[in-house]
Amino acid sequence: MRRRVPPPPNGRYVYAVHPIQAVRWAPDCGAVRIIDQTALPERFIERDLRSLDDVCAAISSLAVRGAPAIGIAGAMGLVVSLGGFDDASLDALRARIAVHAHRIVGTRPTAANLAWAVNAVAAEAARPLGSAAAALRAMRDKADALLADDGAMCRRIGALGESLLADGACVLTHCNAGALATTGIGTALAPIYVAVERGRSVSVLACETRPLLQGARLTAWELSRAGVPVRVITDGAAAVAMRDGRVDLVMVGADRIAANGDVANKIGTYALALAARHHGIPFYVAAPTSTFDAAIASGAEIPIEQRGRGEVACIAGRAIVPNEVPVENPAFDVTPAELVTAIVSDRGVHHPPFRFDR
Amino acid sequence: MRRRVPPPPNGRYVYAVHPIQAVRWAPDCGAVRIIDQTALPERFIERDLRSLDDVCAAISSLAVRGAPAIGIAGAMGLVVSLGGFDDASLDALRARIAVHAHRIVGTRPTAANLAWAVNAVAAEAARPLGSAAAALRAMRDKADALLADDGAMCRRIGALGESLLADGACVLTHCNAGALATTGIGTALAPIYVAVERGRSVSVLACETRPLLQGARLTAWELSRAGVPVRVITDGAAAVAMRDGRVDLVMVGADRIAANGDVANKIGTYALALAARHHGIPFYVAAPTSTFDAAIASGAEIPIEQRGRGEVACIAGRAIVPNEVPVENPAFDVTPAELVTAIVSDRGVHHPPFRFDR
Repeated sequence: MRRRVPPPPNGRYVYAVHPIQAVRWAPDCGAVRIIDQTALPERFIERDLRSLDDVCAAISSLAVRGAPAIGIAGAMGLVVSLGGFDDASLDALRARIAVHAHRIVGTRPTAANLAWAVNAVAAEAARPLGSAAAALRAMRDKADALLADDGAMCRRIGALGESLLADGACVLTHCNAGALATTGIGTALAPIYVAVERGRSVSVLACETRPLLQGARLTAWELSRAGVPVRVITDGAAAVAMRDGRVDLVMVGADRIAANGDVANKIGTYALALAARHHGIPFYVAAPTSTFDAAIASGAEIPIEQRGRGEVACIAGRAIVPNEVPVENPAFDVTPAELVTAIVSDRGVHHPPFRFDR
Repeated sequence: MRRRVPPPPNGRYVYAVHPIQAVRWAPDCGAVRIIDQTALPERFIERDLRSLDDVCAAISSLAVRGAPAIGIAGAMGLVVSLGGFDDASLDALRARIAVHAHRIVGTRPTAANLAWAVNAVAAEAARPLGSAAAALRAMRDKADALLADDGAMCRRIGALGESLLADGACVLTHCNAGALATTGIGTALAPIYVAVERGRSVSVLACETRPLLQGARLTAWELSRAGVPVRVITDGAAAVAMRDGRVDLVMVGADRIAANGDVANKIGTYALALAARHHGIPFYVAAPTSTFDAAIASGAEIPIEQRGRGEVACIAGRAIVPNEVPVENPAFDVTPAELVTAIVSDRGVHHPPFRFDR
């Protein structure tokens, strides 16, 4: 397994099995260094985010994406965006934190982790600290802790979920809930990486995930890079692959999970859950506890981000929808809890009936 | 309705409501004139097919596509491809017909109409005729008759199916089973055109239909051109549109229908049928009798065309799947008869249990 992993461009392995890190500090700690996921799989580019505008643009444009990764990038980005405030008054810093946090959180409304992580870092400055510099140090320490926690969280999800994967299992997944979506080995892909590390043979069918093709571009790239056999199918081909008996289980990530277990995830997830249920195939969700939103009773209350026309209507600069025809582009859908076999979090494997009171 | 239809580029209306004709004779009758569907929606281009290679390339590349249209184009193309044989012996002509028919039929293995129409034209030359010229005239007359029949078939499907569409109905459709897929007003879209002609308000949700985006490119183009309100969604967004109560019925075409009513249609159709069943939404198939294949007992026997990697892995010249990752690209899937509410053919509206003995 390890021998098949090519050396990473940045010369740094996060885990033996996985050579990439989607979000980290730049060496001077004055920037958030991300893998620009809009350039994959054609080019591997890292970018340094140094300002509030950089951070918001990277999250909005999906250069950094995946609920856990944008949470960490937002939290680290909040710290970086306040670089010039060491000598300001604590009140001035706090006022500016509120403005920056509001802008960062507003970039993606559906992911629960973003608000959670940004607010956790912002809350550090509300404590009775002597100076803006001390507050900024506390915020950076908190962001550092979140970064470390995120990697550890992925490992726990992997360790808790890997027993769901028998030797020879074929896992169908959607979008990218892997290393590129976190700062560790992913959420939905973490059990796969751990099972493979433990010597089991696991293969993956990756739905391409229109409109932005994160499955084709990102999941295929990171699994292949880690030596895990993966094939790409169109989203519409998943149901018939299930009927043909070629899928042993479905494993997806989540952007927000309501108290009753309803799961918001990438558009197309709900259709996969329906097909899995019809064919008697287990449908698992893997997500950190930070994705759970106990304040939301059911999926009906989860805000669904509507994204721009261009993502559906244009590909690589070519118009694929006539200009005069409108498109709909909801980024997420909600899979009702009754279609979910189990949710794997960093705290355990949760079975229905779900009840998440954080 | 009619006032909203823009004038067609070729100055010729097939029907009041619909200004295009996907397949016809070129004015000199020495070529099959097709709308090049690979260029839509960006450019409207007609091409003249004059040789066997032209005909096979146009069908293989999907410049002409849709089961009824490729049947007619193949039948007309067979005639055109024999242009130099007027003075040959009847035996020489018949030998050449067998070769040409075999090549044309082999371009697309799933569509029943292609073999049916090509063989119907070829069979004319098997009759006791005095000369090759007479045989070619009979073949041209037969192709002409098929062309006219196809337009009339579409009208009948439209007239038989339009009562399924209440005023204000929203129809979800997949791929393109419209005017561009036939030589008339389509199959799945025919009931919509007829309902609109009769003054009813009908709107359409068009699934974009990966990999080749016939819904986004073609269905959106022809409906919009005809003044029918249409919106494009990704294939993965269909199920949640159904759950949100925004779809009154699903109407799709077919490439082959087995004797038991199992329906082969564009990949992704089966997932729509599953979602429709889950939400109690009627799922209709509209297809001409030539799509029925009584020789095939069930969908398990329908050959499924596997198309090339490039259709999934590249868009507009950009690689969207890493080079080292394989893709699967089945062009069709089979929807079992038990998920089909009714089949609208040119002979009537067929309800289960289906039994098609042609």
